[in-house]
Amino acid sequence: MDAYITLDIGGTNIRCALFLDVQDEPVDYRKIDTVAEGQTPIMRVISAIKEIWPAKHKVKGICAAVPGSVNVKTGTVLLAPNIAGWKNVEFAWIIKDEFQVPVFVNNDARLAAIGEWKKGAGIGHENLLYFTISTGLGGGAIVHNRVLEGDLGIATESGHITLDDEGPLCGCGKIGHLEAFSSGTGIENFVKAQLTSGVDSTLRGLDDIRASEIALAAREADALAVAAYNRAGYYLGIGIANYLHIFNPTCVIFGGGVTQSSDLWMLEFNRSLEAHVLNPLYLENLEIKMAELGDNVGLVGANEYLKEMLNRIS
Amino acid sequence: MDAYITLDIGGTNIRCALFLDVQDEPVDYRKIDTVAEGQTPIMRVISAIKEIWPAKHKVKGICAAVPGSVNVKTGTVLLAPNIAGWKNVEFAWIIKDEFQVPVFVNNDARLAAIGEWKKGAGIGHENLLYFTISTGLGGGAIVHNRVLEGDLGIATESGHITLDDEGPLCGCGKIGHLEAFSSGTGIENFVKAQLTSGVDSTLRGLDDIRASEIALAAREADALAVAAYNRAGYYLGIGIANYLHIFNPTCVIFGGGVTQSSDLWMLEFNRSLEAHVLNPLYLENLEIKMAELGDNVGLVGANEYLKEMLNRIS
Repeated sequence: MDAYITLDIGGTNIRCALFLDVQDEPVDYRKIDTVAEGQTPIMRVISAIKEIWPAKHKVKGICAAVPGSVNVKTGTVLLAPNIAGWKNVEFAWIIKDEFQVPVFVNNDARLAAIGEWKKGAGIGHENLLYFTISTGLGGGAIVHNRVLEGDLGIATESGHITLDDEGPLCGCGKIGHLEAFSSGTGIENFVKAQLTSGVDSTLRGLDDIRASEIALAAREADALAVAAYNRAGYYLGIGIANYLHIFNPTCVIFGGGVTQSSDLWMLEFNRSLEAHVLNPLYLENLEIKMAELGDNVGLVGANEYLKEMLNRIS
Repeated sequence: MDAYITLDIGGTNIRCALFLDVQDEPVDYRKIDTVAEGQTPIMRVISAIKEIWPAKHKVKGICAAVPGSVNVKTGTVLLAPNIAGWKNVEFAWIIKDEFQVPVFVNNDARLAAIGEWKKGAGIGHENLLYFTISTGLGGGAIVHNRVLEGDLGIATESGHITLDDEGPLCGCGKIGHLEAFSSGTGIENFVKAQLTSGVDSTLRGLDDIRASEIALAAREADALAVAAYNRAGYYLGIGIANYLHIFNPTCVIFGGGVTQSSDLWMLEFNRSLEAHVLNPLYLENLEIKMAELGDNVGLVGANEYLKEMLNRIS
């Protein structure tokens, strides 16, 4: 049977799945550490693929989801800040040389968008936006039934739009991006800055304040914690209004860890979105949904993308 | 011979062109006033079409460029603020009923983007952004060789992204949009506000300060006028950086009246773009160009769009 191998590469784990033509669910699945004594991350990727390589099926191709910028034309990982040494890594070339099958690599949020579009919350939508909100804020866009990649593949860096050119510092080093306001890190940085400036909170004294702890405090009605999530929702509303004006989609999907606290930001997000959208028409046909595929979204999306790309080159 | 009629409808004039299959340039051209005693704008549109209707050729379809939001699926002009009474006007239905040929209507900036893409500064680019900067700031996008319209057709309201949520009032009524900073109106409003707050300038005392007069003063080294154009360029750099992160295009084209003063904002625009872009890769394969088609861009783009749409329905 025809088989397809997909990977979801993170700073901590490499997850690897084996798909067969006939079913949507992976028939095999492995998870190994990204970091191991005496091995580079690319050696770990090769190990993961070897482990899952099927004896009885013919592997048609490999596709990897990477947390960073990828030149999808050449298969080069341009920069993946969480993976040691991954700057201008000729990923597709190296893996293809090892396994002698077609290899594709793409941004993890974009492949997640494809996963939700084909198999999750966005089935049937021709114009769809997906946002993953966790440590950072990434995204993907489906435009007229095709994934938006741009010339090199570095489109939809969705967290990196300026909402306030005198706003907080973003993880990318620029100022006032959507990610700096509405990601988990943005929420944490806001709370830390408010504590430093003397604001009272039950969070004071904690060693390392994480977004999840702020969420717990918010559910206990800590005013600073509540304000932090409201602020994230407010700026997310501005950002999504911008994206509605740009794309006029029928579906917006939110995934990532911060969606587990969506009860804390959804009300202010909706208020802000309604206040900032040009025209109620942008909201009329719009579904706003939570992602449905969970942790496997990248692996599923990579499988869909892989099959599409193999079709295109065949 | 097969003939195509296109219109570019503005608040002052309706311009109308007749194209034949065999050549790119219109073979006939008319310009009439949009406003006339005892006639609605839609009656004027019908007059313009009747005037140019060819005796010897078979008209295959009509396409109109409108300065406003259009539901391209139904051919309804949702809102065109500069044309009296144009809110929810069933444009395509009315014109089709009169002339019994297929009728299409779309946003003027989007059709201009198509014109520049097919026949102007953007030929050959698969991923292209077009911005028209005049009284307002509009745009269009070509994504993987297809024009981005969104679900209803109200995508690429490119001037209406928030750059500073505490910034100046935009023409749309919202706060701190790109248009509020970098359009002609944005430049004028900045100068007026600075004069009101007591800043010295040779522009003081003029009855109605227009962007073109500010440009003249800037060329005479008036400090306020220079600052006004620099500010427009600075925020345009932020806005275009956002759009590069979203679309990763190979070509950005600027059209519209404010490009006649591009010498006054281009330096600061380039500085700001370089400062705000995530990664120099976004600029490496990028051409930034001025529009080439002049006043006919909407008519030419409408003709290209019309032929494409007739192909799709045939």
